[in-house]
Amino acid sequence: MKIIIDAMGGDHAPAEILKGAAQAVKEYHVSIVAVGNAEKIAQAVKEHSIDMDQITIVNASEEISMCDEPTAAIRHKKDSSMVVGMRMLAAGEGDAFVSAGSTGALLAGATLIVKRLKGVKRPAIGTVIPGANHPFLLLDSGANVECRPEMLDAFATMGTVYMEKVLGVKQPKVALVNNGAEETKGTPTYVTAHALLKQNSNIQFVGNVEPKDIPQGDVDVVVCDGFTGNVILKLTEGLAKMLVGQIKGVFLKNALTKLAFLFVKDGMKDFKKKLDADEYGGALMMGVQHPVIKAHGSSNAKAFKNAIRQAKACVEGNVVNTMAEKLALTVPDGTEG
Amino acid sequence: MKIIIDAMGGDHAPAEILKGAAQAVKEYHVSIVAVGNAEKIAQAVKEHSIDMDQITIVNASEEISMCDEPTAAIRHKKDSSMVVGMRMLAAGEGDAFVSAGSTGALLAGATLIVKRLKGVKRPAIGTVIPGANHPFLLLDSGANVECRPEMLDAFATMGTVYMEKVLGVKQPKVALVNNGAEETKGTPTYVTAHALLKQNSNIQFVGNVEPKDIPQGDVDVVVCDGFTGNVILKLTEGLAKMLVGQIKGVFLKNALTKLAFLFVKDGMKDFKKKLDADEYGGALMMGVQHPVIKAHGSSNAKAFKNAIRQAKACVEGNVVNTMAEKLALTVPDGTEG
Repeated sequence: MKIIIDAMGGDHAPAEILKGAAQAVKEYHVSIVAVGNAEKIAQAVKEHSIDMDQITIVNASEEISMCDEPTAAIRHKKDSSMVVGMRMLAAGEGDAFVSAGSTGALLAGATLIVKRLKGVKRPAIGTVIPGANHPFLLLDSGANVECRPEMLDAFATMGTVYMEKVLGVKQPKVALVNNGAEETKGTPTYVTAHALLKQNSNIQFVGNVEPKDIPQGDVDVVVCDGFTGNVILKLTEGLAKMLVGQIKGVFLKNALTKLAFLFVKDGMKDFKKKLDADEYGGALMMGVQHPVIKAHGSSNAKAFKNAIRQAKACVEGNVVNTMAEKLALTVPDGTEG
Repeated sequence: MKIIIDAMGGDHAPAEILKGAAQAVKEYHVSIVAVGNAEKIAQAVKEHSIDMDQITIVNASEEISMCDEPTAAIRHKKDSSMVVGMRMLAAGEGDAFVSAGSTGALLAGATLIVKRLKGVKRPAIGTVIPGANHPFLLLDSGANVECRPEMLDAFATMGTVYMEKVLGVKQPKVALVNNGAEETKGTPTYVTAHALLKQNSNIQFVGNVEPKDIPQGDVDVVVCDGFTGNVILKLTEGLAKMLVGQIKGVFLKNALTKLAFLFVKDGMKDFKKKLDADEYGGALMMGVQHPVIKAHGSSNAKAFKNAIRQAKACVEGNVVNTMAEKLALTVPDGTEG
């Protein structure tokens, strides 16, 4: 299997990206095509003594930054690492593409270069988030700020395929985010979506999930529009960071509390690991013809390695084709989102 | 000052409600009218030896439960504690009304009995939430699942008045929840709202706030539609509960970790207090003619006492009239939400 990576995307590119790729080669037995500025790549490889076994470099002279307007960047920066990488993916020169670069640009590229599945208006972003009981998939976690009910229905189907094929969850439980358990709750869009989800034979729909219950991780697929999904994803990150910071403050208070930390250090480590989103890799752009994975912008080597593992699982699970099949089954007229 | 309370609303009514009222009388020098089933009240007073100085009881034979359809309950349960209490408020027989009962019924009652300010289509709920730096007001935190831009603009004005008058914040910073800092971010509603907020001379608008930054508490008024606000409020509650539970687990692991807890106990207590929403009382129904305050459904005596303190601050700060004045200034045609 050949995974194409964007060596220039993310806060710690290219060094951490390449280190993660090298680890992935060893652990997952994949081969890597690293697209990016060959000179900068060579320098990082030398500086960090990165083992480049099974990693091929493809030069790309430009880079897409977080400040670039996404669609314009994809259209005009034709020799950027992201555009070159996605062109290779579309041409079948690799099985999946992984980037820690701009989400907006990656979405635009997924649409314009990798192309959508027939009947999909815009890709959705599916992100795995750690929960108290088990991790869950949140989608759309930011791509579509406005969604029609049919789109939410399609997200449920795609999310089910993902959890089955990539995380190995049998009969994933699907829930719709809403401000109450009753099926009449929420905006007209959510009321209609609830009715569609009830009828969707591809999924196991368990009803609405109230926001307070989301962090428990009792359901496997959490469906919502991208505006709400972005709030859920980012608020979770921000709040966890804030709370962990506050607790750190408690332990740093004096010599006794510092001593106390030594006793709970291992437990805290386990706790942190459990809630570490990096463990689950990146977010999948759902609804495009080949697997495109967005690793977190702040990805270190471990996070990027896990995003590659996820890419491999998508390829092995034949996730894209299964989604295409199921979506066609769900909405026979092929007009869903 | 006379505060009317719903003695029957909430999970721990009437005992904790009455205990909170008795504490409020002592601490805040208010007098209380407790509306509810006189027999049950008398029993609770006896059982818990509650000091009823300055507390008058008004009998109401019915109760509105969490399962009642809100509007129907307000229309038909005419002798419920909530309806009787709000009728008294509307008739000027008290200065504010506080209830830990059903939010939906309270909203319906605020609209149908207490009546809206001229030009307000539906009341909004403003909830004070603890942040890392300081508490902030979130509105709408659940009343209006769909909002027009003009409504978001009115929320900003009302929120500013509240933070100035009740929490004593000078020139509160107002921000709009959005999935990015740029003013073009979000749905068309949010884009238009951003433009309105920029022009609103009643407020100090600091731009969009991204969900990850909300828990920091760097801004004072966080504006969004009620669907999003409900997600922010309830996800914050759920996530904090989940994380605190996980950390408890770390300390309960063995004898050493239990010992460690003794060293950090005080710090953890401070931490918990800082993040305790009960400290800030209840949520204000904004846009109605008299102060109506919703205390948390799980209110204990302390939480209910604080909700009464908040009601007193609303009356003393002349919050309702100030909001009415400012709203008329903001939207001269008086059609805003």
